Amino acid sequence: DFARVDHHRTLRRGYPEVVYGEGKSAEQILTILRAMGRHGGPLLATRVSPEKAERVQKDLPGLRYDATARMLYRKEPREPQPAGPIRSVQVLCAGSSDLPVAEEAAITAEVLGRHVERFYDVGVAGLHRLLSLRRQLDRATAYVVVAGMEGALPSVVAGLVARPVIAVPTSVGYGASFGGIAALLGMLNSCAPGVAVVNIDNGFGAGYLASMIADM
Amino acid sequence: DFARVDHHRTLRRGYPEVVYGEGKSAEQILTILRAMGRHGGPLLATRVSPEKAERVQKDLPGLRYDATARMLYRKEPREPQPAGPIRSVQVLCAGSSDLPVAEEAAITAEVLGRHVERFYDVGVAGLHRLLSLRRQLDRATAYVVVAGMEGALPSVVAGLVARPVIAVPTSVGYGASFGGIAALLGMLNSCAPGVAVVNIDNGFGAGYLASMIADM
Amino acid sequence: DFARVDHHRTLRRGYPEVVYGEGKSAEQILTILRAMGRHGGPLLATRVSPEKAERVQKDLPGLRYDATARMLYRKEPREPQPAGPIRSVQVLCAGSSDLPVAEEAAITAEVLGRHVERFYDVGVAGLHRLLSLRRQLDRATAYVVVAGMEGALPSVVAGLVARPVIAVPTSVGYGASFGGIAALLGMLNSCAPGVAVVNIDNGFGAGYLASMIADM
Amino acid sequence: DFARVDHHRTLRRGYPEVVYGEGKSAEQILTILRAMGRHGGPLLATRVSPEKAERVQKDLPGLRYDATARMLYRKEPREPQPAGPIRSVQVLCAGSSDLPVAEEAAITAEVLGRHVERFYDVGVAGLHRLLSLRRQLDRATAYVVVAGMEGALPSVVAGLVARPVIAVPTSVGYGASFGGIAALLGMLNSCAPGVAVVNIDNGFGAGYLASMIADM
Amino acid sequence: DFARVDHHRTLRRGYPEVVYGEGKSAEQILTILRAMGRHGGPLLATRVSPEKAERVQKDLPGLRYDATARMLYRKEPREPQPAGPIRSVQVLCAGSSDLPVAEEAAITAEVLGRHVERFYDVGVAGLHRLLSLRRQLDRATAYVVVAGMEGALPSVVAGLVARPVIAVPTSVGYGASFGGIAALLGMLNSCAPGVAVVNIDNGFGAGYLASMIADM
Amino acid sequence: DFARVDHHRTLRRGYPEVVYGEGKSAEQILTILRAMGRHGGPLLATRVSPEKAERVQKDLPGLRYDATARMLYRKEPREPQPAGPIRSVQVLCAGSSDLPVAEEAAITAEVLGRHVERFYDVGVAGLHRLLSLRRQLDRATAYVVVAGMEGALPSVVAGLVARPVIAVPTSVGYGASFGGIAALLGMLNSCAPGVAVVNIDNGFGAGYLASMIADM
Amino acid sequence: DFARVDHHRTLRRGYPEVVYGEGKSAEQILTILRAMGRHGGPLLATRVSPEKAERVQKDLPGLRYDATARMLYRKEPREPQPAGPIRSVQVLCAGSSDLPVAEEAAITAEVLGRHVERFYDVGVAGLHRLLSLRRQLDRATAYVVVAGMEGALPSVVAGLVARPVIAVPTSVGYGASFGGIAALLGMLNSCAPGVAVVNIDNGFGAGYLASMIADM
Amino acid sequence: DFARVDHHRTLRRGYPEVVYGEGKSAEQILTILRAMGRHGGPLLATRVSPEKAERVQKDLPGLRYDATARMLYRKEPREPQPAGPIRSVQVLCAGSSDLPVAEEAAITAEVLGRHVERFYDVGVAGLHRLLSLRRQLDRATAYVVVAGMEGALPSVVAGLVARPVIAVPTSVGYGASFGGIAALLGMLNSCAPGVAVVNIDNGFGAGYLASMIADM
Ligand SMILES: Nc1ncnc2c1ncn2[C@@H]1O[C@H](COP(=O)(O)O)[C@@H](O)[C@H]1O
Ligand SMILES: Nc1ncnc2c1ncn2[C@@H]1O[C@H](COP(=O)(O)O)[C@@H](O)[C@H]1O
Ligand SMILES: Nc1ncnc2c1ncn2[C@@H]1O[C@H](COP(=O)(O)O)[C@@H](O)[C@H]1O
Ligand SMILES: Nc1ncnc2c1ncn2[C@@H]1O[C@H](COP(=O)(O)O)[C@@H](O)[C@H]1O
Ligand SMILES: [Mg+2]
Ligand SMILES: [Mg+2]
Ligand SMILES: [Mg+2]
Ligand SMILES: [Mg+2]
Ligand SMILES: [Mg+2]
Ligand SMILES: [Mg+2]
Ligand SMILES: [Mg+2]
Ligand SMILES: [Mg+2]
Repeated sequence: DFARVDHHRTLRRGYPEVVYGEGKSAEQILTILRAMGRHGGPLLATRVSPEKAERVQKDLPGLRYDATARMLYRKEPREPQPAGPIRSVQVLCAGSSDLPVAEEAAITAEVLGRHVERFYDVGVAGLHRLLSLRRQLDRATAYVVVAGMEGALPSVVAGLVARPVIAVPTSVGYGASFGGIAALLGMLNSCAPGVAVVNIDNGFGAGYLASMIADM
Repeated sequence: DFARVDHHRTLRRGYPEVVYGEGKSAEQILTILRAMGRHGGPLLATRVSPEKAERVQKDLPGLRYDATARMLYRKEPREPQPAGPIRSVQVLCAGSSDLPVAEEAAITAEVLGRHVERFYDVGVAGLHRLLSLRRQLDRATAYVVVAGMEGALPSVVAGLVARPVIAVPTSVGYGASFGGIAALLGMLNSCAPGVAVVNIDNGFGAGYLASMIADM
Repeated sequence: DFARVDHHRTLRRGYPEVVYGEGKSAEQILTILRAMGRHGGPLLATRVSPEKAERVQKDLPGLRYDATARMLYRKEPREPQPAGPIRSVQVLCAGSSDLPVAEEAAITAEVLGRHVERFYDVGVAGLHRLLSLRRQLDRATAYVVVAGMEGALPSVVAGLVARPVIAVPTSVGYGASFGGIAALLGMLNSCAPGVAVVNIDNGFGAGYLASMIADM
Repeated sequence: DFARVDHHRTLRRGYPEVVYGEGKSAEQILTILRAMGRHGGPLLATRVSPEKAERVQKDLPGLRYDATARMLYRKEPREPQPAGPIRSVQVLCAGSSDLPVAEEAAITAEVLGRHVERFYDVGVAGLHRLLSLRRQLDRATAYVVVAGMEGALPSVVAGLVARPVIAVPTSVGYGASFGGIAALLGMLNSCAPGVAVVNIDNGFGAGYLASMIADM
Repeated sequence: DFARVDHHRTLRRGYPEVVYGEGKSAEQILTILRAMGRHGGPLLATRVSPEKAERVQKDLPGLRYDATARMLYRKEPREPQPAGPIRSVQVLCAGSSDLPVAEEAAITAEVLGRHVERFYDVGVAGLHRLLSLRRQLDRATAYVVVAGMEGALPSVVAGLVARPVIAVPTSVGYGASFGGIAALLGMLNSCAPGVAVVNIDNGFGAGYLASMIADM
Repeated sequence: DFARVDHHRTLRRGYPEVVYGEGKSAEQILTILRAMGRHGGPLLATRVSPEKAERVQKDLPGLRYDATARMLYRKEPREPQPAGPIRSVQVLCAGSSDLPVAEEAAITAEVLGRHVERFYDVGVAGLHRLLSLRRQLDRATAYVVVAGMEGALPSVVAGLVARPVIAVPTSVGYGASFGGIAALLGMLNSCAPGVAVVNIDNGFGAGYLASMIADM
Repeated sequence: DFARVDHHRTLRRGYPEVVYGEGKSAEQILTILRAMGRHGGPLLATRVSPEKAERVQKDLPGLRYDATARMLYRKEPREPQPAGPIRSVQVLCAGSSDLPVAEEAAITAEVLGRHVERFYDVGVAGLHRLLSLRRQLDRATAYVVVAGMEGALPSVVAGLVARPVIAVPTSVGYGASFGGIAALLGMLNSCAPGVAVVNIDNGFGAGYLASMIADM
Repeated sequence: DFARVDHHRTLRRGYPEVVYGEGKSAEQILTILRAMGRHGGPLLATRVSPEKAERVQKDLPGLRYDATARMLYRKEPREPQPAGPIRSVQVLCAGSSDLPVAEEAAITAEVLGRHVERFYDVGVAGLHRLLSLRRQLDRATAYVVVAGMEGALPSVVAGLVARPVIAVPTSVGYGASFGGIAALLGMLNSCAPGVAVVNIDNGFGAGYLASMIADM
């Protein structure tokens, strides 16, 4: 009675509900996942600590846990998707500290059935790293671009490609980064059209939206 | 020499450059549009006052001006697109004061070649207005959802549909709306996945991104 | 001498003073509750940790403790109120993480003698959950509507009902929720009239005010 | 088609829809008021400039205009309400600059059929002015308390009375009043329970909510 | 060499330098106090934890420690001041949680040689507590008024008295109190003249300034 | 009835009420000044435009107007005060753009009967200008120190003198001065004790408080 | 007496004082420039409107006025500087709307005797424009990089060059650009070392500092 | 693969890449430093805890660790630089709590090959401390000026010297210092030209930029 699972979401929206693990006990996560998993399909819980994950996995053994992304999940056995040059979601991040958020996006997209390519630590302070990927960038259907600090990477990527860029600001940084506000504002003010933004550290939301786009 | 037109943007990005009219003189807008229009293709200038528009139209007569959206544009004669049930961009807005931003999005998408449907004044304080549109909503490929004040509409729409929602906060409101910050924050914190956000009042950016998505 | 109990508050305001437990030691809470309890009547202390609660209960055994709401209280044996269709306070919350605040409101109203109904996890991303309650909603005198993140629930509820809505933003969320600011601003900018707002996480204040309203 | 009037709001919510005049042309206001007025009942438009008001009144002659509150309205001929000692809404304000907001609240309540009493310029810097009203305060059902600058008046009033206080911060002030933020924060943090807050300068919302409360 | 003690401050400013203990080790505090204490006179260190205090007292035994105010100090044996009706500094605070800041102010003033009177828990939600002190208030030379939450007390006090009020906002509160910002803004916008404000939680600064004023 | 003049303020507080002219019509200012002036004593209205001033002066001919400070006033014929070396209020400001605020402080103090000395354009970027005044500074009883931009002057002055410094941030500056916030925060965080702060541009409040201090 | 010119600044700091024209009358600017110009040397006044400029030029005919930068100045006849490949200050800007700020920087540096090169409209959304300048960039001693909106250009430039970058955020943009805050924060959080930032729109400060650096 | 070391940065920018240790494991730091150290040259990692430092030093024994600055580094054996009167970088700080940031700047400059002089605890509240250093200040090529609280020191220093000042705000302070925002804003609004600012607590960035300047 503390939670009302939205069972017909898959029908309505194409994707199942996802558990937000922050502030829930292992028991609560377990209860919800069980209710959701009854009818098959992929399962996903985000922001789950290793301790809670271990506890949940003991009772729901089919789940995998990723410690970097702090996610608990079960991929549905899908038909292998043709990993052709233009049907993948690409996840890029600016620095190595943005990895947890980038992985949250990447795993979300994989659980939802997308083919994912990762390009990490390609921040704008050493532009040659990004420019050398130019050809590979052309084969994506949607981009998730993750960056903290000044959050300039999405503008630069969007200036190079012809597909939607979902920008994710991260709370990486200190001082006037204000827990991700600097990156968030930078991305909202992107001078390159074709960029939209999700909440700070919301890798899940970006992976979800990129999957929707790549599915069309 | 005050502006370097990005001529090969259509090649690189699929769409031509667009002129941001704010703070540019009619003469500057004219010069840039001329340079851009030389090779054919659609033309678009945003944030153009009626006075400047009139001045530019005198010398570049093929342009149309929309006073609500404050846009100056030329649509390219495209093959008529099959306006089938699922290939349109839908633009929704919460209140009648959000119209200028909604129209900026709608016209941008039309100039870029999309079929557009408009549903205005469907804010969450009278939910029946939105719920009565439910069937029509299903035929879109992407949604632009425009709202000021508390910006709750995108969450509600995204909870009802299976396609990407691009949310546009507007500066409509007073007091603690802080020129659109309340709506912006509301949208960034949407509890419904499948939503990404553009800058306050950036109808252009939302229409552009929705067009990219609908084009796939 | 560190505290001056406002003994004649019940006379002046109809309700007794309530102890704000944050930052007070168990001993201080005990001293104040004792002074206040001398003349009978309900007793209430908010924001009390389990450890302090246990310590206070040892010396003031008539008190009950609720761990979710973190409240220590004694209901006054009142005439049973006729739980008729229109004389209750209803407490709604958007997500399961908002429970502690919702319970603080609900228990406050109960201690002050109101009949309370609870509807939890009815957020706007799955609107059918709220819409299915429509008939039940009609029987309340006042609503306490609790939500974090974008805080859209109070607007939607107020759009459906004919009685006052007291909105409580919670600090649930991350990133651009800014510890409840996004929800607070959303609620202050509600496009539906009939809504007023209390401080972030202030379930107590909302339950108190709803009780005042329902008492008339 | 720019506006969808919520005709069955009176049924659903007890009160009719109200026009927010800011940013609407006189013609738009006229069109909406006409549609709303067709079935009788009170009519109300807020934030209307004198020029627009004059234009609308020419075509809809039954309307009155209040220049201080900037409201255009038509009261419904109601049964005279017994102005007994405890069934009025009282509107208090701190300084004489808060008058427009206080009047917006007062007139809203009157149009909705309440009996209203006004006590103006009773700010906390000269407490005797408020204290001398103490007996009169006891006869109200709900209070609208309006204040700019530090917004301390609602706390002081709520400490003296036994009925709900709806606090309205105003944008009156300069410097660190930040257009009403100081007053808004002060009111949200009121140390006296029984206070809820509406948006800065939102006299209408407060008058509406106080009317709802006083109607029970 | 990490610190340059401002030895001739007493000469220049009338009062000795004071050590800000936050972020300094016990050893550093000891070194500085020793250097300062060489020539006699009062000694004061603020923001000192009990552990550091104990460590410093072991080597500098003449010092006293106050755990509420977290201060380490040595009063200079001064001529007993005539505690006449008008030569004291009065320290008032709104709630019992403001005590540590109020005590920091009171002890500072005492160490600097002033006569101090304390009136605590006299917040504006129960005005009779303050009004009953009215006669006593008249005998002060300067007031330090401490309050968290909405910070309304200084305005009310200043409206009653004829001497300078130094207002100290505290970080007591939650949610929209924003760590003392609400109280700070309230005090800066005081509608009663004769009020000036120091930093959030800066009891020391207020006690120092009130001492300067009372010394004239 | 729009205003309740606080007639016994002079009795209670030593000084008469002062009219805040912003947002009041010339007629309202006139009415209030007349009511206040009936019993003699000094008169003061702040934030009065030249047009309103002229209108008021026509009907209340004893008043003087200062266009820089935008004040309308009447000094009371007081006993000439002995302008001895230590009984004046000194007003300092950092740049020449701070003059209007500095003059508001200076004239307020003069109307309240103080002897005032002015030292303008002595900002910290050219320290020799301030240091050359050192001897003159010693003869004041209280300082009003006015500065915009980074607001550093009060700290520097307080480090040199032995009397209270009332700091006034001004809205002079651009960009990250944020209308005086930078200066306000600088002054609140002064590393020199003996400083308290009033609202941005509140020369009146500072002059009033300095007068209170100098009067003891 | 409203201004104390800092005559020995050239001696102390190498450069003369500069007049900040905002909020000064033409007469005041004239008076100060005359006092400063008496001993020869360059003269500079910033933020001067065309009207004031014309008025000042009439009485001080040696001055030139630049309408884009809104500056009034007189260059000192200096020895022609060898415009060698590595001794220039380069000024870059992202968009054509940043021109006024970029020109303020460029002219300041020229008046102070530097050789200046300008590269405008080279924003990161069309990276090829900047990359094509790579060779030319190598010959500068210091860079002034001006950008509004997300302010990403300084990071990209600093990643390509080996000399100091002075970043200038501009107030160009709308919505969440917050008058330059987005760009300011972006620049403060630059992931490329070798960048320091001046105030929003402070082209003067950047040109001055770059000149200091290039002079060594 | 989590990190792409920017090997040719020394070539491109004159200095090697530097490791930002925050949020990286000891193993990650070790891996990156090893990759970078392969070709000789200086090595630097910032924000390294003592525990991680110890772990890294075990495997890379040539490194030194500074616990105050929390830096791990290896200076390259350079030609001894002539420590002449004008070729040093000077690091000044306002209070003794600013030491960690000041040392981060100083050690960065030393590792990059500069001669460094330190002047600590010279805040503006005791100006004689700074003024007594005046002669020594003249021999620097660039200044790093570190201050928390109101951040006034850079303005005062810049007013005294003829070389670039790099200002570093620190998060030292409490209340309205807002973790360094007050100091940051103060420095951005410096009334003395010749100042540029880096991020809060970014001693590294300031030391790096000052080294660039001093190298010319
Ligand atoms: N209303 C708008 N809001 C945000 N960006 C815009 C807008 N209109 C045009 N733009 C973008 O601004 C860029 C042109 O800026 P500019 O070179 O200054 O004309 C184009 O590449 C567009 O993508
Ligand atoms: N959780 C709460 N939030 C806000 N106010 C509260 C809360 N609990 C108690 N209070 C109020 O705080 C006052 C008591 O404060 P105190 O005297 O510090 O115990 C009471 O009058 C209550 O109205
Ligand atoms: N609690 C406090 N709040 C603000 N300033 C303080 C406090 N305690 C000491 N100070 C001031 O801080 C200065 C000493 O700083 P420091 O040199 O870091 O010990 C003294 O000159 C005091 O005036
Ligand atoms: N546009 C500007 N932005 C910031 N500071 C300026 C500007 N123009 C001049 N200044 C500085 O302002 C000071 C002069 O201020 P003032 O004495 O008011 O004219 C000079 O010392 C300049 O360094
Ligand atoms: Mg890297
Ligand atoms: Mg409507
Ligand atoms: Mg749920
Ligand atoms: Mg008044
Ligand atoms: Mg109490
Ligand atoms: Mg000057
Ligand atoms: Mg361009
Ligand atoms: Mg010190």
